[in-house]
Amino acid sequence: METTVNTHLSTVITPQELLNHWQGHRGLTRRVIEAFPEDDFFNYSIGGMRTFAEMVMELLGIAGPGIKEIATAETAQLLENVEHGNKKTKILELWDKATEDINTYWAQIKLEQFHETIKSFGQYEGTVWSSIFYFIDNEIHHRGQAYVYLRALNIEPPFFYER
Amino acid sequence: METTVNTHLSTVITPQELLNHWQGHRGLTRRVIEAFPEDDFFNYSIGGMRTFAEMVMELLGIAGPGIKEIATAETAQLLENVEHGNKKTKILELWDKATEDINTYWAQIKLEQFHETIKSFGQYEGTVWSSIFYFIDNEIHHRGQAYVYLRALNIEPPFFYER
Repeated sequence: METTVNTHLSTVITPQELLNHWQGHRGLTRRVIEAFPEDDFFNYSIGGMRTFAEMVMELLGIAGPGIKEIATAETAQLLENVEHGNKKTKILELWDKATEDINTYWAQIKLEQFHETIKSFGQYEGTVWSSIFYFIDNEIHHRGQAYVYLRALNIEPPFFYER
Repeated sequence: METTVNTHLSTVITPQELLNHWQGHRGLTRRVIEAFPEDDFFNYSIGGMRTFAEMVMELLGIAGPGIKEIATAETAQLLENVEHGNKKTKILELWDKATEDINTYWAQIKLEQFHETIKSFGQYEGTVWSSIFYFIDNEIHHRGQAYVYLRALNIEPPFFYER
């Protein structure tokens, strides 16, 4: 294995790297939303599961408000429904707004906070880092499900490794 | 939001926490394997995708060997096939062996290594941290797909948030 030392940062991951990592995932999730035909995005599902639109509304309810809550210490409400009129453009607009909100509030989170214990949305106890990892992991989990929906619809999903 | 400072670790996540986080995910993936009827584990798929058995063999090919490669700097080969004789017990045995291998080799990775640039399996360039995050994210992604397979088979998957 070739090994090159490109920095001497003695830490697993910096806050900026974790933000970039997540926004890379969020960019991929955005492309998965785009890959769905509008009707299937709002209506298609397998095995009695939620539509991808419903899952994405959950992700929108978590991401921006969850990071704002961590940054401001003001309890957030978990809202999983938005007015979308069955339009993907509306969902994508909210997605891009969340991207900005995450960047804005992330910049206010201090390194010392990542090991603080919090209750996300007033109820889910964890550390700041474990809460943020949950937000990211939950997005990967549901997006993986959307890949199956797309394959069942005979649509090629974006490459998982492209961020 | 209630906030309690329980430690003053000024870092996003420690190596030990990242290991525990991953092993928590791996425990959940193990329970998802257990939830499949043996025949469906090796044969069921949707939309021309791989069976969950094939995905799990990929995960087995990555996890232990990938961490061993990081710890020892000896180039690993990516092998995605194992002799299983269509027996879940064999796959679960290999899963548990990988759990031990990860713990063993993880203990040899130094904090300063996480920002080194490496080529995983001799070909995928990244940092140590981004490679490990890829291993974890890829597992979450495919396990999410297995949740759809289980739902389509009318089987209740384990709770995502239980680790």
